[in-house]
Amino acid sequence: MPEHSEFLHALTSLLPAQSISLAEEVLAEYAVDQGPVLDLQLPLAVVWARTVEDVQDVVLLAARHGVSVVGRGAGTGVSGGAHASRNSLILSLERMNRILDINPEDEVAIVEPGVVNAELNAAVEPYGLMYAPDPASYRMSTIGGNIATNAGGLRCAKYGVTRDSVLALDVVLADGSLIHTGHRTFKGVAGYDLTSLFVGSEGTLGIVVGATVRLKYLPVDSRTLAIFFDDFRTAAAGVLAVGKARIQPAVMELLDGASLQDIDERMHSTLRSRGGALLLIQTDGFGAEAEAEGVAAAVAPLGGRLSFEDPEEAGRLLELRRNSRGMDADLQTRVGEDIAVPRSRLVDYIAETEQLALRHQVNVRVVAHAGDGNLHPTFWTEDAEPQSIARLNAALDESVQLALEMRGTITGEHGIGQFKLQWLSQEQSPELRTLQHRLKELFDPSGLFNPGKAI
Amino acid sequence: MPEHSEFLHALTSLLPAQSISLAEEVLAEYAVDQGPVLDLQLPLAVVWARTVEDVQDVVLLAARHGVSVVGRGAGTGVSGGAHASRNSLILSLERMNRILDINPEDEVAIVEPGVVNAELNAAVEPYGLMYAPDPASYRMSTIGGNIATNAGGLRCAKYGVTRDSVLALDVVLADGSLIHTGHRTFKGVAGYDLTSLFVGSEGTLGIVVGATVRLKYLPVDSRTLAIFFDDFRTAAAGVLAVGKARIQPAVMELLDGASLQDIDERMHSTLRSRGGALLLIQTDGFGAEAEAEGVAAAVAPLGGRLSFEDPEEAGRLLELRRNSRGMDADLQTRVGEDIAVPRSRLVDYIAETEQLALRHQVNVRVVAHAGDGNLHPTFWTEDAEPQSIARLNAALDESVQLALEMRGTITGEHGIGQFKLQWLSQEQSPELRTLQHRLKELFDPSGLFNPGKAI
Repeated sequence: MPEHSEFLHALTSLLPAQSISLAEEVLAEYAVDQGPVLDLQLPLAVVWARTVEDVQDVVLLAARHGVSVVGRGAGTGVSGGAHASRNSLILSLERMNRILDINPEDEVAIVEPGVVNAELNAAVEPYGLMYAPDPASYRMSTIGGNIATNAGGLRCAKYGVTRDSVLALDVVLADGSLIHTGHRTFKGVAGYDLTSLFVGSEGTLGIVVGATVRLKYLPVDSRTLAIFFDDFRTAAAGVLAVGKARIQPAVMELLDGASLQDIDERMHSTLRSRGGALLLIQTDGFGAEAEAEGVAAAVAPLGGRLSFEDPEEAGRLLELRRNSRGMDADLQTRVGEDIAVPRSRLVDYIAETEQLALRHQVNVRVVAHAGDGNLHPTFWTEDAEPQSIARLNAALDESVQLALEMRGTITGEHGIGQFKLQWLSQEQSPELRTLQHRLKELFDPSGLFNPGKAI
Repeated sequence: MPEHSEFLHALTSLLPAQSISLAEEVLAEYAVDQGPVLDLQLPLAVVWARTVEDVQDVVLLAARHGVSVVGRGAGTGVSGGAHASRNSLILSLERMNRILDINPEDEVAIVEPGVVNAELNAAVEPYGLMYAPDPASYRMSTIGGNIATNAGGLRCAKYGVTRDSVLALDVVLADGSLIHTGHRTFKGVAGYDLTSLFVGSEGTLGIVVGATVRLKYLPVDSRTLAIFFDDFRTAAAGVLAVGKARIQPAVMELLDGASLQDIDERMHSTLRSRGGALLLIQTDGFGAEAEAEGVAAAVAPLGGRLSFEDPEEAGRLLELRRNSRGMDADLQTRVGEDIAVPRSRLVDYIAETEQLALRHQVNVRVVAHAGDGNLHPTFWTEDAEPQSIARLNAALDESVQLALEMRGTITGEHGIGQFKLQWLSQEQSPELRTLQHRLKELFDPSGLFNPGKAI
């Protein structure tokens, strides 16, 4: 790409050698996250920022040369939000990984964007605190990436999603300037809520280079119930029964038989032998025991085999759930979904998903953050024949339509990225989409940041 | 105002007579909310919308005639966010007061903006649900007004502020168009978070004409502890002790001796005789009893006279607290503050506030949503002599500076409105302020909505 030699030359003058790579295998590795790839593009370069100034310098240089900037954390996203665009560089934040401050009395931490979610949690645990958002990728994914996608997780029905834990942000804008949004206090209503605007904007409005997050209290106690049912729909009905009892578990996960079997195969567990569907519930806090008893009473009329798990087994079950999607990226023959529906439609959605998979002759397994109505069906085919792929895509499309018909959303927590743009106009009106494009233009008039994503 | 006769004529043709008032006493009543008045302006007219179309028609007509539109709920705001501007009309939403839908399984409600907070709570209570944000004005203030200011309240340390309970909004924009933001599901990350951008924007970006809110579970149990101390600083230290025990009460309110005395005088209670400061804590949920015992143990080393209150007395104490600021608007001789500081600074802030009041020879009383670090000092003087008012303003200004020095904010939950604009540039950088003005311009290029407020 000789037309970029000037840019690449300037880039290598700007940063130390170990902060840049032009190596083919590195470009290939950083070209994609774990989302489906619709249009593979190699970046011109991969850059690892070490400081805020690095980010500012790179942004300004890229702007001068008309090169796009794709911010990236750990690359664990599953919607292609960190896929390279044409004529882009990947700006990795993974080496900006310092926890700058933990204040256990204020119950806040200040972190660089590359801090791994699990590392922050490990660092605050001695103070009796936790960073609540816990995407399944929490052992690898970064706070910056979690912020870019407004990541959810297992315990967010009770503790909220990423947005609910972010108090303030440092953001580098398209003109290279650095702004600070939000406040260190739990409450604050001065001016517009720009912090929330950046959370979930997938690096299209600016590059988050620092975050002040609110920490919550580690629960003093927790109880874990594994309830195995013969069929998935009854397990889903259990979710509504717990809701009707007005009990708010910290975790309420649903796994169907195919998911249990898949986990067993990969993790050498024996879940499938215990039933055709699993409702995995964890209550926590001072009322954990009473809540767990309330859960047991609420689901009793549905049948099912209920066991209170000891802490070790509970941890193992949650870890198995976190691995339910596997560590692999989506394949041509396998795509994971991330829709959410109003809670009352959980059973209907599951029933209709099973039907449509049959109709399109594709396989399906489903896990759900059921407390939030957030479902992750995974569809797959046995081969990559064109007619198989066509059936796969038809099933996928229908499953998304179904969520919209039930007044749901096309993405509960993974983000639009690049992959889900195809459905966005079915969820959002032309007026709303135009407004978002005008916002994008205001922040980033030359379309520097992560083009073709999010909106 | 003959130059407006054409506008007023068109307005009276547009809406039925009972939806408009030009009467002097009505204009005067609707000219201000309960915030300090810096620049009294009478509106040209007061209009009560009954439908979304009414709002759209009025907005378009006002735009054509260059008349500003000031949206208004119950007018209980205390920052002047609903004060009339020069050449404005007041658009009251208080008659759009229908609860359109309550879905107890989805745990959401859809409301018009004029629904009173307490009425929504009463309507969802039979389902075991509550609308969590509870500003002290909850018996009068509207959901729309709560959204405009991102209102907080007593129980938001545990249950979050208004923003955390709003899932979706219907908003009329400056061009008269209607958009729908957000989602009915608990989670959803499609596109930018415009919902949060509108929440707290004080009617400067659009007029909220509908809201989908998330409901939370009414707690199965609650325990209320009244802990009286001889002095306020020790009571504040109790807040930190509870935090160190990692217990999250639903309510954690601090009242100093002067506040207790003021309540006693107005409400015929006898709080002041029980101590010089009150820490009022309510725990709730399945763990309420265990948490209350934990609170008692945590504060025991500080001394204080602790009593567990029966539900009736607990309700009475909370109601007295909600009335602590009184029902009156600020006066020339009395101004209430709304700063927030990081929790660790609570004791310091209170100590320094007592000092600065002495130094400026003004009276002060303080109540605080202590769990959030959100303090409401009220300063007052005995007379309205110019030198007294100068001392009052100096004390007020210093109390705000103090919050900023402690890394706090100039407004925890009341909003900037008109009154707090004077301090905004001390909290927010020029770059951040410029960005917000550009956002305002994008949404409202002709400056139609609530000019001179919020940013």
